[in-house]
Amino acid sequence: MNALVFNRKLKFVDDYPSPSPPPGESLIKVLMAGICNTDLEITKGYMGFTGVLGHEFVGVVEKSGRKDLLGRRVVGEINCPCRECYICRKGLGKHCPNRTVLGIQGRDGVFADYITLPDDNLLVVPDNLSDEEATFTEPLAAAFEILESIHIKPTDRVLLLGDGKLGILCAQVVSGTGCDFLVVGKHREKMKILKDRKINTSLLDDFKENISKNDLIKYDVVIECTGNPSGFRMARDMVRPRGTIVQKSTYAQNPDVNISMLVVDEIRLVGSRCGPFKPALSALAKGKIDVNLLIWDILPFGDALSAFEKASRKGAGKVLLKM
Amino acid sequence: MNALVFNRKLKFVDDYPSPSPPPGESLIKVLMAGICNTDLEITKGYMGFTGVLGHEFVGVVEKSGRKDLLGRRVVGEINCPCRECYICRKGLGKHCPNRTVLGIQGRDGVFADYITLPDDNLLVVPDNLSDEEATFTEPLAAAFEILESIHIKPTDRVLLLGDGKLGILCAQVVSGTGCDFLVVGKHREKMKILKDRKINTSLLDDFKENISKNDLIKYDVVIECTGNPSGFRMARDMVRPRGTIVQKSTYAQNPDVNISMLVVDEIRLVGSRCGPFKPALSALAKGKIDVNLLIWDILPFGDALSAFEKASRKGAGKVLLKM
Repeated sequence: MNALVFNRKLKFVDDYPSPSPPPGESLIKVLMAGICNTDLEITKGYMGFTGVLGHEFVGVVEKSGRKDLLGRRVVGEINCPCRECYICRKGLGKHCPNRTVLGIQGRDGVFADYITLPDDNLLVVPDNLSDEEATFTEPLAAAFEILESIHIKPTDRVLLLGDGKLGILCAQVVSGTGCDFLVVGKHREKMKILKDRKINTSLLDDFKENISKNDLIKYDVVIECTGNPSGFRMARDMVRPRGTIVQKSTYAQNPDVNISMLVVDEIRLVGSRCGPFKPALSALAKGKIDVNLLIWDILPFGDALSAFEKASRKGAGKVLLKM
Repeated sequence: MNALVFNRKLKFVDDYPSPSPPPGESLIKVLMAGICNTDLEITKGYMGFTGVLGHEFVGVVEKSGRKDLLGRRVVGEINCPCRECYICRKGLGKHCPNRTVLGIQGRDGVFADYITLPDDNLLVVPDNLSDEEATFTEPLAAAFEILESIHIKPTDRVLLLGDGKLGILCAQVVSGTGCDFLVVGKHREKMKILKDRKINTSLLDDFKENISKNDLIKYDVVIECTGNPSGFRMARDMVRPRGTIVQKSTYAQNPDVNISMLVVDEIRLVGSRCGPFKPALSALAKGKIDVNLLIWDILPFGDALSAFEKASRKGAGKVLLKM
């Protein structure tokens, strides 16, 4: 089958062996897949992964022990836990130390004609969703993880830093809580997406000017989605004592973290990663979250290498591959 | 009056001007005061404080607008907020950006014959408590702050790192939650204090040997009280995915914090500082927490300089000053 394989170099091949599903897993024909920043990071060495890349997808189940899944269009959770260790028994399967992760760790990913995934990972996609929209379920789930991680109250003042793809998805999710909400980003055209949805926004330079001019009221919650260590420093400056920083960004380089000041101000720093698929799929199906505006381009799978090049441009939107 | 003053150097003087209480504050004759690690840190330049040191005390109210306080033995919360800013209006007075802090920031401390404190900061000490015991209210309140900061469940596995004075107090408080609890420390004689109270303990070397031998089940909550950056690294290693690190220690040097791994494992890092006096005083009065065993020595106020020397020895217990 066709597959985009990473092994020191990224290579498109047409003779990759098709997978066959072990018991408890389904064989899925991939319809569409999205390129994520994590994929780009992996090609720079992150996670030391080799194999077929990709974890954002929608596909059709072709073989399965579960009749209710056969022939259905599905999306799938990317973490495949052992279901036996104490972490799994605690219901924290996505953190299972023995897990494989689709296209990230020990399991071939979705930039291929076929994949296999555990039946339990699969969710049927409502008919009213396009393939394009369904492909956003995984990144949107990561946005919903914010609300799994902490309780945002309608009376909270919340600041979200970053207007990348993750930032735009997180902003739409957080705005659903009814909190007093501001998004700060660098790109006027991306801010417009949010403004059109009645979400308060500010360009970074304006925001910085404002906070230097005014007596600053700090934020109860700051959500860091910039992907840049300077974002962490700003989050730290902007959160009130006893406030919460939700950390979505990972960084190649560690920012300097003054632990003592986190103690003195009693800050909570909450790491937040992959999230729940069901609320994400439901929000998409109900049209509550608009993802179409994030799509930059849709390319045929054969053009995967140039799609990767496109996705790695600064400020790129989502690039999708049509299988 | 007599006072122990810090201004680049620590000096015992007998001609320091006695304070006179502004409206809303009481004049208190200090009976006994405790030397805290923070006092030692201040003499090394922490907080840039100059003035009378000290914040752990018990005293008698000699002047006050509040008749119910006159002549009573009291302890007092050390943070004096402005009561006007948005942080104060949120009920977070101890984090008020305009606050003074007894013997730490903008307000003379308790190593003196007299102090003043806002009436609202004072709590009357029950008669059954000795001066020695009452002096521990402030550090014990900091231990209770752990339970203000997070919810520890009886089904949680909790690890506390550190057997210094703060560690021993925190251990006694945390053990009250009924959780599955282990304290790891370096000093056999201090571990014995906890063992005698039916608290599970392990010496650090034994603990390290055990975790290298066994399939490790990590902890739901790790409380870091070592005061040493190596304690933070161990806390990070020992907490399970989605678990919580309660950070009590402050460090002169920042440890290297891998923010990305906090995100991947979805760790919560919760800074925890000063705490509520009322539950601390109540626990002392009910004999639930034993503090007498932490007392190393009680010296007359005139010997304050040698008391400081004693308190700064490695592994020192609490050194008290009798005014």
